[in-house]
Amino acid sequence: MSVTAPQGFVAAGVPAGIKASGDLDLALVATADGAPCTAAAVFTRNLACAAPVQVSRAHLAATGGRAAAVVLNSGNANAATGPAGLAVAEEACALVAGGIGCAPEEVLVCSTGLIGIPMPPEPFRTGVPAAVAGLRAGGGAEAARAIMTTDTMAKEAAASAGGVTAGGMAKGAAMLAPNMATMLAVLTIDAEVELAALQRSLQAAVDASFNRLTVDGCTSTNDTVIVLAGGSGPAVDEARATALLTQVATGLASQMCGDAEGATKVVRVQVTGAATDDEAAAAARKVAESQLVKCSWYGQDPYWGRILSELGTAGVQLDLGTVSIAYGDQVVSRGAVEVDHDGGALAAHMAERSLQVTCDLGVGGGSWWLLTNDLTHAYIDENRGTS
Amino acid sequence: MSVTAPQGFVAAGVPAGIKASGDLDLALVATADGAPCTAAAVFTRNLACAAPVQVSRAHLAATGGRAAAVVLNSGNANAATGPAGLAVAEEACALVAGGIGCAPEEVLVCSTGLIGIPMPPEPFRTGVPAAVAGLRAGGGAEAARAIMTTDTMAKEAAASAGGVTAGGMAKGAAMLAPNMATMLAVLTIDAEVELAALQRSLQAAVDASFNRLTVDGCTSTNDTVIVLAGGSGPAVDEARATALLTQVATGLASQMCGDAEGATKVVRVQVTGAATDDEAAAAARKVAESQLVKCSWYGQDPYWGRILSELGTAGVQLDLGTVSIAYGDQVVSRGAVEVDHDGGALAAHMAERSLQVTCDLGVGGGSWWLLTNDLTHAYIDENRGTS
Repeated sequence: MSVTAPQGFVAAGVPAGIKASGDLDLALVATADGAPCTAAAVFTRNLACAAPVQVSRAHLAATGGRAAAVVLNSGNANAATGPAGLAVAEEACALVAGGIGCAPEEVLVCSTGLIGIPMPPEPFRTGVPAAVAGLRAGGGAEAARAIMTTDTMAKEAAASAGGVTAGGMAKGAAMLAPNMATMLAVLTIDAEVELAALQRSLQAAVDASFNRLTVDGCTSTNDTVIVLAGGSGPAVDEARATALLTQVATGLASQMCGDAEGATKVVRVQVTGAATDDEAAAAARKVAESQLVKCSWYGQDPYWGRILSELGTAGVQLDLGTVSIAYGDQVVSRGAVEVDHDGGALAAHMAERSLQVTCDLGVGGGSWWLLTNDLTHAYIDENRGTS
Repeated sequence: MSVTAPQGFVAAGVPAGIKASGDLDLALVATADGAPCTAAAVFTRNLACAAPVQVSRAHLAATGGRAAAVVLNSGNANAATGPAGLAVAEEACALVAGGIGCAPEEVLVCSTGLIGIPMPPEPFRTGVPAAVAGLRAGGGAEAARAIMTTDTMAKEAAASAGGVTAGGMAKGAAMLAPNMATMLAVLTIDAEVELAALQRSLQAAVDASFNRLTVDGCTSTNDTVIVLAGGSGPAVDEARATALLTQVATGLASQMCGDAEGATKVVRVQVTGAATDDEAAAAARKVAESQLVKCSWYGQDPYWGRILSELGTAGVQLDLGTVSIAYGDQVVSRGAVEVDHDGGALAAHMAERSLQVTCDLGVGGGSWWLLTNDLTHAYIDENRGTS
């Protein structure tokens, strides 16, 4: 059920002293034999991207898509840390390379935590050797725990078909938005996949999963999804790889939404009948990212008027005569006015942890959905201070 | 200090039974003689605009920019109310016209309150005659109180120069975003202004004031700013009209930001050194509308890393080598790393009610500023339910 579910991968999670709590905060995922395998990644589009993002991108470019390990830490994002931060990220890779016997460029690095705090090298100098010593086929669960920040649960997933297994771990929590989130994920698959196909498979998996999440519309400095395709299994085609990676990524994304900072609701916002899929996506995002709508979900208030108002400013084709809004199976508004519905069934749906909002624009065949959360007191409390 | 500060305008505010509390909820602003004067307006761009917006727009088009009165109610937005809502808005105008002796098309109408709740005609049938009977030169303050929703203070402003006076009233609170807000404002000026010049002056005043506000990025169904230019004063040129209306609108906008729902901070986000003014505006908006950044302000936490992260996703030219971020007079980050600053002075600034954030991108001459607020428990409580 994790990055070590596929054959040929080992992992470890250790406490390296980055978190003041002493919790696990350094994870290592590697090929079992320390030899590089095919690797692809999707990184944040944030221009203020963190040192590990810059280093991992450079390493993948230098090796032409080969990697033997990924080292990850929580507790400090190593973002906005300047040249010193870059040096620490490079040193972390070199330490891993020395430990498992590969080239430094064959190691990728990810960090998550606070932005703008200098990242000391010491945790890697002590933590990496401990993690290398602890690498084992059953180490996926510890690695998944070591990358948690405000996550309350470790996030792991795996899927198998036709003798091929894919697995993965992720951390999420907040700053989740399209084009990824404050999220790190490492996926593994025990099959040979050609590099270009692997990159396309990963992008498809990300588009269908992490990019469907928006907790607060914020896009992080550190978002990274890496996939390692190990050679111990059979060669698989792109379609099979895409299906397996998508299944794993979707499972991780669902866990991330369910464990979003302070959330009491997981809300699926579905827009149908839009002029195009792009317009449906824009409308879904406008509704999903509305502070006012999010507050109403927290209050279990089916205030469809606010949703209609968001649709009206989403920059999409809207016909007030044909638009309808439903919560669960209760259509509450049609033609931009309230319509009769079962108030008891509606109240029961609003009280559930998972809400379904469906906005049918009635102007075309475009559709899209996103997962999001409510806006709660606890979200504010988690984000009002860094201490 | 209100819409009745200029010569030739009268106003009233009465309780019409729309608010369950029995508070003032119907306002009327009119020319003292009941004759139409030059009128211009700026309306919400929300496609799901409310019935009164549709009616007022049609009336101004029918009269070619003439109006004798504006009737406003709080407690119900008359939005998403279908043909019945349109009929009530038209009836409200007809009732005023009958009372003051003008044509129905010479009356404009505004509503604010909950969306999607049927608007009954009765409050207008009883309230409009009472308001007409109560019209007086000193009635501006009551009218300003009658349009409050979650506002905690009535919002009035006036400005004079060269024998000409402009005045205004507004309601704000939340859903404040560029392209206006859940806001209504009526401005008056006791001077002849040619219609096209008046429309330009109003747009300039709105751009410099209400469109600089963003509380939560939500744009309402009902936003309306109306100006009545009365003929009792001298003719003034466009520049003078613009200056006076801008002064009044800026005063009202400042009050709106200071009284935003649940806010503990008023934050001026200034972006300088952007490639263009448009890029500066986009960057300022990304920072100002970030839930994460807003939470940090609530916690008085000068977490500049999040601001840098928002700048990195604003879709603007960004050079990590030249960007700097300051709170008050303390530059906390330069070149995307933390720099030495006076921690005591910084903490003192963060504890103030008014915060100043300055992001200098260092890539060009573009600049922009916006006013916004923090995100608080009280904001959530005001918006989690409709009751």
